[in-house]
Amino acid sequence: MATLCRPAIAVPEYIITMEETLELARTIHADHPQLGLALRLIGNTGVRKRHLLQPIEDTLKHPGFTARNARYEAEAKARVPALVRRALDHAELTTREIDMIAYVSCTGFMMPSMTAWMINTMDFRTTTRQLPIAQLGCAAGGAAINRAHDFCTAYPRANVLIVACEFCSLLYQPTDLGVGNLLSNGLFGDGMAAAVVRGEGGEGVRLERNGSHLVPDTEDWISYGVRDTGFHFQLDKRVPGTMAMLAPAMRAMAEPHDWDISGLDFYIVHAGGPRILDDLCKYLSLPPEMFRYSRATLTERGNIASAVVFDALERLFAEGGAQDEARGVIAGFGPGITAEMVLGTWTAAAAAGESAARAA
Amino acid sequence: MATLCRPAIAVPEYIITMEETLELARTIHADHPQLGLALRLIGNTGVRKRHLLQPIEDTLKHPGFTARNARYEAEAKARVPALVRRALDHAELTTREIDMIAYVSCTGFMMPSMTAWMINTMDFRTTTRQLPIAQLGCAAGGAAINRAHDFCTAYPRANVLIVACEFCSLLYQPTDLGVGNLLSNGLFGDGMAAAVVRGEGGEGVRLERNGSHLVPDTEDWISYGVRDTGFHFQLDKRVPGTMAMLAPAMRAMAEPHDWDISGLDFYIVHAGGPRILDDLCKYLSLPPEMFRYSRATLTERGNIASAVVFDALERLFAEGGAQDEARGVIAGFGPGITAEMVLGTWTAAAAAGESAARAA
Repeated sequence: MATLCRPAIAVPEYIITMEETLELARTIHADHPQLGLALRLIGNTGVRKRHLLQPIEDTLKHPGFTARNARYEAEAKARVPALVRRALDHAELTTREIDMIAYVSCTGFMMPSMTAWMINTMDFRTTTRQLPIAQLGCAAGGAAINRAHDFCTAYPRANVLIVACEFCSLLYQPTDLGVGNLLSNGLFGDGMAAAVVRGEGGEGVRLERNGSHLVPDTEDWISYGVRDTGFHFQLDKRVPGTMAMLAPAMRAMAEPHDWDISGLDFYIVHAGGPRILDDLCKYLSLPPEMFRYSRATLTERGNIASAVVFDALERLFAEGGAQDEARGVIAGFGPGITAEMVLGTWTAAAAAGESAARAA
Repeated sequence: MATLCRPAIAVPEYIITMEETLELARTIHADHPQLGLALRLIGNTGVRKRHLLQPIEDTLKHPGFTARNARYEAEAKARVPALVRRALDHAELTTREIDMIAYVSCTGFMMPSMTAWMINTMDFRTTTRQLPIAQLGCAAGGAAINRAHDFCTAYPRANVLIVACEFCSLLYQPTDLGVGNLLSNGLFGDGMAAAVVRGEGGEGVRLERNGSHLVPDTEDWISYGVRDTGFHFQLDKRVPGTMAMLAPAMRAMAEPHDWDISGLDFYIVHAGGPRILDDLCKYLSLPPEMFRYSRATLTERGNIASAVVFDALERLFAEGGAQDEARGVIAGFGPGITAEMVLGTWTAAAAAGESAARAA
């Protein structure tokens, strides 16, 4: 059985607070006809601070897609190795024991992907499978876990390394002035995560059943405009209401596993914004405390895209983990509108006998 | 056991011949100091004709990355559905029976990916897994087959639809004037493929063992420059010699399966250029006829990136297929330098009894 081990998290060194974000919005958009609405929406996110790759004055410049993507590549190469080593340490594995690397990121584009660079630079085996995913946005963290789960189901002794690297600040587009853009500018942050799914052994979430759901006809609710100036994030105002459709999808996905989605012990979900968490409480009849890990991620880092679910999960680990055999769900939400969900059971490190039995 | 069924292939309606390509190069690059070399390299490809989305005069214009990517999206949406229906017909399945869509393409970028649009438009189940891959280039066809194989190994009753959609002509960059660029401009063509991997039943290649190999420290041999003007294809002159490293990787991958890579019955490999096919003959001690399907793809269509392996496989089907239980290999090669390889056995449609036994 595949086990998602403790993630490693990294955030860059520059910080912008909510107060600074609001002040910036007031300054830059002083004449915007919907400034008041934008400020209210940003205030309502509850994001206290976010981490950025660069000082805010540099973040606000757009040096062109060429320079931006070069910056993405340089920063990813500078930051990924140390992060990956921490995740491998958590899983008690070396690079030589990894069979697949799932690298997910929607904030930069490279070909070959970072997976090739990592294999060359960090002494992974040359036979390591590469699974780079750039087009699932915030749902890609959940998708990476699910594809790692599938891979370990196919090859029970395999180990999969997941890296989620999101520098959302490199997508700031100064000429995009919709209210959704102003809100996004105050919501997204930079952050990175790595975690290992071990086919055998390991402490963490033993993955049991995964599923995907696409909400019909919502393709243009979250999307990129792909332009000469790079990726333009486009957010429809209906997105915050998405949980009305995705909470039932979570319930339906748990039913064939004979689990009641409202009766689980822990919930690790994408914190795209505050309404998602509020609505999940409502639709799943759960108290707000059940989403405290995701809420903390949102508050401390903003929406860090595909890295959110790992940051929230790390907070569960930091709290000491769950009770052995506690049941939970991990769910990423993103463009499509797509949910990538997995049910799992908290497990302490497997006893040697059990591990041997699995290998047999 | 997962079986790769007969692919469906589509090419767009405009055609450019080798003679026209050479004449164009002479006209456009009359003053190029290495024109003679470029003409010889193009002539040596053996590409007799290529298919293009647009008339050549439009192909040669660069209307900007915004317009190009919009064109990619419009053309993909116009052409994918009919192609997919043919592939489903070959596999005797409907969209409702597909569990995952692997959509691979390195010549356009969309978020959400085409997978979301297909699910919405073509009546796939909302629970269909989405696996869009944009960053594996020409190796992505092989990667899609391999990830489909993994998925069906994990879930033996699952079916995976693969779509490879490559409009290479949308990456023409008039300001890129290296000899490698001139060669690429005469080598790549537009083409699309779709194929189903059936978890149970089906006629075609029963997939048995897959593997990946990255040639160390060759990341910059095939790469994209990602710029304001879109993706810039960058080809190192050492690439044609890659088979010296990848032929041994193919051999090593077959050994634990107790197969001699030089003793198989059919070979379906990426036809990146003529040297790849010539060198495989040399390093694997095989006569040229063994690569006739890949050679025909190169000759008739040029290098159509991730779609090559499917087009070559389709030619094997068109020839009547292989003998039952014939052994073969499918291998995609691309940036990294990466090889994605799978060993398989030709199988006629499974008998009902066998199919039921697998399902048990």
